[in-house]
Amino acid sequence: MAGSTAEESGILSIEQYDEDVIVASAWFDDSHLRPGGIIAGPNLFLAVDSMGYLVTMSRAPKGSNGFTSAISMQFLRPAPAGGLRVEGRLLKFGKRGSVVDTVLYSHAFADPVAQAVVTYVPLFPATD
Amino acid sequence: MAGSTAEESGILSIEQYDEDVIVASAWFDDSHLRPGGIIAGPNLFLAVDSMGYLVTMSRAPKGSNGFTSAISMQFLRPAPAGGLRVEGRLLKFGKRGSVVDTVLYSHAFADPVAQAVVTYVPLFPATD
Amino acid sequence: MAGSTAEESGILSIEQYDEDVIVASAWFDDSHLRPGGIIAGPNLFLAVDSMGYLVTMSRAPKGSNGFTSAISMQFLRPAPAGGLRVEGRLLKFGKRGSVVDTVLYSHAFADPVAQAVVTYVPLFPATD
Amino acid sequence: MAGSTAEESGILSIEQYDEDVIVASAWFDDSHLRPGGIIAGPNLFLAVDSMGYLVTMSRAPKGSNGFTSAISMQFLRPAPAGGLRVEGRLLKFGKRGSVVDTVLYSHAFADPVAQAVVTYVPLFPATD
Repeated sequence: MAGSTAEESGILSIEQYDEDVIVASAWFDDSHLRPGGIIAGPNLFLAVDSMGYLVTMSRAPKGSNGFTSAISMQFLRPAPAGGLRVEGRLLKFGKRGSVVDTVLYSHAFADPVAQAVVTYVPLFPATD
Repeated sequence: MAGSTAEESGILSIEQYDEDVIVASAWFDDSHLRPGGIIAGPNLFLAVDSMGYLVTMSRAPKGSNGFTSAISMQFLRPAPAGGLRVEGRLLKFGKRGSVVDTVLYSHAFADPVAQAVVTYVPLFPATD
Repeated sequence: MAGSTAEESGILSIEQYDEDVIVASAWFDDSHLRPGGIIAGPNLFLAVDSMGYLVTMSRAPKGSNGFTSAISMQFLRPAPAGGLRVEGRLLKFGKRGSVVDTVLYSHAFADPVAQAVVTYVPLFPATD
Repeated sequence: MAGSTAEESGILSIEQYDEDVIVASAWFDDSHLRPGGIIAGPNLFLAVDSMGYLVTMSRAPKGSNGFTSAISMQFLRPAPAGGLRVEGRLLKFGKRGSVVDTVLYSHAFADPVAQAVVTYVPLFPATD
């Protein structure tokens, strides 16, 4: 039940929005760094958590919300401060939970810096 | 390569320190909450990431450091603001990476609020 | 949707059955080995998958069934042929999925050989 | 330390072999099914485990071997008996472990049936 609320997804700027695939960018400046000048883990976590929310909501009825139930994340390479490219792809959408594959890329090189599978449980709005 | 530096582990206060098992507490006040009054996901992530560091360092030579290479985390129940109990247990210690099982408990009820397996790669100090 | 059916759980012999904790044993002979004389990965997978089923069913109404939706597994040490001790502990039970922590021990030494978190979705019997 | 040996990768027939991406097919007949006519979980596990081995070996020196250290797997949809398409993509190659993203598709429909991230530790041949 991580913090995948609409408010928090504000760290992502959507650049491409297709069915089942969303690409966004995020910017992490000096206040988000750990020693060594790399983006700290909790910020990378926030980026993939927010993408799990966005991709799920692209399929859910208007007014839905929800929560993250699981994240399995690989930290592949240190990400230097600056821009990140965040790609999200829907693997499954279902009432019990959607499964979203996310990959993070740095502005500085081509190989991915992190990958995560996010399981997000959508809560649909009550119908009258 | 998440932010498991000594500095960040400052959010944990160690309460019990046995071989292969560490118990710590963390406190999350109103500044760490998401709407609904529950502790936001990135803070829970930081707690387990820090515990992965602490448990690994309990076995590594003095002066070691390292980085988190993977975290697989289950968000089980919403955690209300306040104290968390963080338990870490070493499943394996190795040069290629240690594996630490962590469970988070709220002050408010007995069932766990989150569980994570953290893989942390220790970097030993250079020997002369 | 792994093979966690009642039939397959037949590889486990239950030795202890408490609320939220089940301990079982399994036996893997020479037909289950990979070169080097260690128990092959798919057999360890089957053991944790079966335990996810058993622990979930201990809480579900009689006549329930279900399927595995996710497994996150750590292979910690090679397991020599022979008996395994399989411990399962319920972290959460819910309609959308139960979360079960499982640890595998060899008969040959004290440290665990594998650990897994199994997410199992129970399907309750239809009510008339 | 799952069963990712060369022998076991024999269940996969390689169809496409590019740098960092391998596509293979596998065939599961009636002997691999669980009740309901779907391919049993341990067989899907074997397919992604074998792909983790193949993708890692495509980068390792000739004569290398190794073992699987972790698998995080999502079971997305039941897979009916017959052919599977297995896609493997290298996220990272390193001495401490390679990280391979794998997706399984059924012959019967377009959506993926399973996804897994495999961490495989390569062991390079001894040099004289």
